[in-house]
Amino acid sequence: MNEIYIKKISETLNVEPWRIKGALNRGSIQVLKKPFVYLVFRKELGKIERGTAVFFNDKDVVVVRGFPKIKRAFYLKPALMMFEKVAVEEKMDGYNTRVFMLNDKVYAITRGGYICPYTTKKLREDKNIERFLRDYPEYVLCGESVGKQNPYVVHEYKEAKDFGFFAFDLRKKVENTPLPILERRDILESYGIKNVRLFGIFDKKEAYKKIFEILEELEKENREGVVIKDPEMKKEPIKYTTSKTNTSDLRYGFSFPFELGKDFFFSRVIREAFQAFELNESEEKLRERARKLGESILIPFVESIRKVYKGEILTENFEVLLNNDEEAEELIEYLRRQGIVLMFEKERKNSNIKLKVQRFMQASYDKIKSFIEKGIE
Amino acid sequence: MNEIYIKKISETLNVEPWRIKGALNRGSIQVLKKPFVYLVFRKELGKIERGTAVFFNDKDVVVVRGFPKIKRAFYLKPALMMFEKVAVEEKMDGYNTRVFMLNDKVYAITRGGYICPYTTKKLREDKNIERFLRDYPEYVLCGESVGKQNPYVVHEYKEAKDFGFFAFDLRKKVENTPLPILERRDILESYGIKNVRLFGIFDKKEAYKKIFEILEELEKENREGVVIKDPEMKKEPIKYTTSKTNTSDLRYGFSFPFELGKDFFFSRVIREAFQAFELNESEEKLRERARKLGESILIPFVESIRKVYKGEILTENFEVLLNNDEEAEELIEYLRRQGIVLMFEKERKNSNIKLKVQRFMQASYDKIKSFIEKGIE
Repeated sequence: MNEIYIKKISETLNVEPWRIKGALNRGSIQVLKKPFVYLVFRKELGKIERGTAVFFNDKDVVVVRGFPKIKRAFYLKPALMMFEKVAVEEKMDGYNTRVFMLNDKVYAITRGGYICPYTTKKLREDKNIERFLRDYPEYVLCGESVGKQNPYVVHEYKEAKDFGFFAFDLRKKVENTPLPILERRDILESYGIKNVRLFGIFDKKEAYKKIFEILEELEKENREGVVIKDPEMKKEPIKYTTSKTNTSDLRYGFSFPFELGKDFFFSRVIREAFQAFELNESEEKLRERARKLGESILIPFVESIRKVYKGEILTENFEVLLNNDEEAEELIEYLRRQGIVLMFEKERKNSNIKLKVQRFMQASYDKIKSFIEKGIE
Repeated sequence: MNEIYIKKISETLNVEPWRIKGALNRGSIQVLKKPFVYLVFRKELGKIERGTAVFFNDKDVVVVRGFPKIKRAFYLKPALMMFEKVAVEEKMDGYNTRVFMLNDKVYAITRGGYICPYTTKKLREDKNIERFLRDYPEYVLCGESVGKQNPYVVHEYKEAKDFGFFAFDLRKKVENTPLPILERRDILESYGIKNVRLFGIFDKKEAYKKIFEILEELEKENREGVVIKDPEMKKEPIKYTTSKTNTSDLRYGFSFPFELGKDFFFSRVIREAFQAFELNESEEKLRERARKLGESILIPFVESIRKVYKGEILTENFEVLLNNDEEAEELIEYLRRQGIVLMFEKERKNSNIKLKVQRFMQASYDKIKSFIEKGIE
């Protein structure tokens, strides 16, 4: 990396040049080469978040800061005490996306900071986004990409069956400072860009009851949960999810029990225990919750063992619709670079290409196979 | 540690002196001073197991090797293939105890290699053990101490309500070589020492069916499981437990969810999943197993949160009956040295002393309290 650029990055981020060089040498900052040269922070560096990406235009560096990790409430009552008023927005189950303007084009990066060709292509189709970013080039549009058509998180939403983007933040490129909730919502709406749902801005005292009512509704509709925010965005938001989200995470996790860490499982059990406690559940309700918890752990696990026993492999499946071979190849190359074992199948569908992606769950497959063969660890 | 002793230990164990010195310096070999100087291997050193203890008599060193870790079968069928014939003995739910003669007295050490004053006292009361060890001083008598009266593992057995010792191995002091099953059982029986139950010696082919029949019976009686052994003890034994043991472990574990590791939880889930698979359970049976699994995780966890919320502390409680104050003080001092936070209460009962021990579950208490106060991690 050129000394001049390191100096510029250092000045822009206010991080000493030697720290940036060190991180580059260790690989904590990764140098990407496609579609052009850019940097991705794979670990946090001082105040600079993991997922921060640095791009280069003609004369300068363009920084898109990492999206801050949102803390989770396990027990809502005391967690709300940090706020005065709370804005309650929907937490959707998709993948975190940051959209911004670079060299006169729209780009979309995922949580980790990588330019995703698929998401970029889909969001470029939305001319409202381009129009907004041309007017506000210093902002990064942050939101959730959801729907059934993407290579990351499949969850059907009635308002966005195949693909949808719902904004939940507008942040300054370098400083990462967010706009107040209503201001952000108004600006985006005026450009025809959808925000995630706002359930209301509540007083600290009434919020508690309201949030559990909202969660009950969300649970019925199989929706994930809420993010609780200071309307001025001066305090850190917190997230809270429904019980169904917790058990459906577990059901997914225990389909591939050796892929995800033990922390993943344990954390969801903690959520369920504190929610049951907070709702002061009766013996009967508690048993019902326990039954669902147990089923979400054991049943997918046993199903996966049965699959491996029958000689099947364990995969997670996605499909995306693309316009042409070139787009397909670009996405395949991008996903392959993520370092996971993938199988692809292309299927022509009218003038489009349906790309079926299978992610091979190697760790779970190998471990289950070894148990089946040897019986012992 | 005196050079002469290091040389003797080195020769006896066939481990280079510098490795022993290194382990002493690192604390992997601990020097105990009570009731006299002895060494405990806190980590394995080459072929020498963790839990090995080295004592000194007038002229020589006396080595009691660590009890080898028994591997667990997750899926029984292939695990049995390693054997020709299998002896199936009961696995009892107590604590591993090794008993041996040193300087003309009987001593009992726990799994870790520490002399336990309580177990030593209890086993000295059994004159058959002393008689046997006088005749076979080169042997270590290995078995399970069980019952309701001990400071480690409380599980009531109808044949040993308060305290009982059941042998499952006879091993040479230095070499750690075990006697064949029937030979060990015969010798001990002739001295009036109880062995754990032997369910039979089976052919590899019939063993599979038999073991699941045995487990069904054990499950009904709330007993832990089996250890499957080569009758000649030339191969490593394997253990296998009932579903009720797995869920009761979980129920215990989730009463103190931040005390035991995530490995503890996950490992029991694996056991349940493979057992359900191996028994080829119907949808209905699988759901019933899942319900029990879920209840064993969630219910004790919520109960512990409720306790902390009400201002109670989380403790594990034991009680033991002792003859006098001196015995009580000795046990208190021994347990305190184990480095866990304990509260004691002495209660005079006729001429005896009932010592109530409460182990404070600090990690779970602190973590749950912090969640209750802050709501977030």
